[in-house]
Amino acid sequence: MGCIICKLISEEIEVTKVYEDDVVVAVMDIQPINPGHLFIAPKRHIESISELDEEVGSHVFKTATRMTNALRRSGLKCDGVNLLLADGGSAGQEIPHIHLHVIPRIRMDGSGFKFRKGSIRPPDRKELERIAGLLRRAFG
Amino acid sequence: MGCIICKLISEEIEVTKVYEDDVVVAVMDIQPINPGHLFIAPKRHIESISELDEEVGSHVFKTATRMTNALRRSGLKCDGVNLLLADGGSAGQEIPHIHLHVIPRIRMDGSGFKFRKGSIRPPDRKELERIAGLLRRAFG
Repeated sequence: MGCIICKLISEEIEVTKVYEDDVVVAVMDIQPINPGHLFIAPKRHIESISELDEEVGSHVFKTATRMTNALRRSGLKCDGVNLLLADGGSAGQEIPHIHLHVIPRIRMDGSGFKFRKGSIRPPDRKELERIAGLLRRAFG
Repeated sequence: MGCIICKLISEEIEVTKVYEDDVVVAVMDIQPINPGHLFIAPKRHIESISELDEEVGSHVFKTATRMTNALRRSGLKCDGVNLLLADGGSAGQEIPHIHLHVIPRIRMDGSGFKFRKGSIRPPDRKELERIAGLLRRAFG
């Protein structure tokens, strides 16, 4: 079947691009959370962060921050912006080609990141230190 | 009162850091969505993306992707990862010092980005092209 984002990049399927260069493309999302919702993807087919070259990653992020500034200047309704990346199906990644969403937010638009009830507790500092130890070792 | 993230960086208040260098710091979130939830912030007090230097931004993002890889290697439960940045109160930014969340996700954990009902419609290509035109001009 092939990758939908690769097909958008090659324009094999209908697409509205806002920007592209040799490394990344910015594409209007066809299921926008608000008008102006777009995403930035590397042109090369990269499934996950584990395969993402740091230079390409930087270019994706830089393009997203420039698009954030463009959204605020565009005249579109934009009271805030979320940048969101989903790495893995359990994180909500629907297309296995990495992409960073740039989501204009409008005051009280009813969207946002959902927290589980009961997930917010006073911090257990000992537990945080234990977890941080695991992460420091893995960070290398 | 001063900025909470600045106080975490200076260790004026209790903090568990996973990583720090001259430019950024990685701090365990005290209201974790799942164990291992942390955020990356520039050390300099920067409120929003509009003030974010591209080099600093790249360093923040690179650190977040390296933390994503560390999470997957750490032994903590991690079926996926979300990277999330909130720019502006209407986007859910609670502390006016820019920070990028690295959120480990566990299958069926009940979290995720919330879409308004009715926001998902078939694309109106003409409208997408009009909006893309505004963004292209503003992108410069």
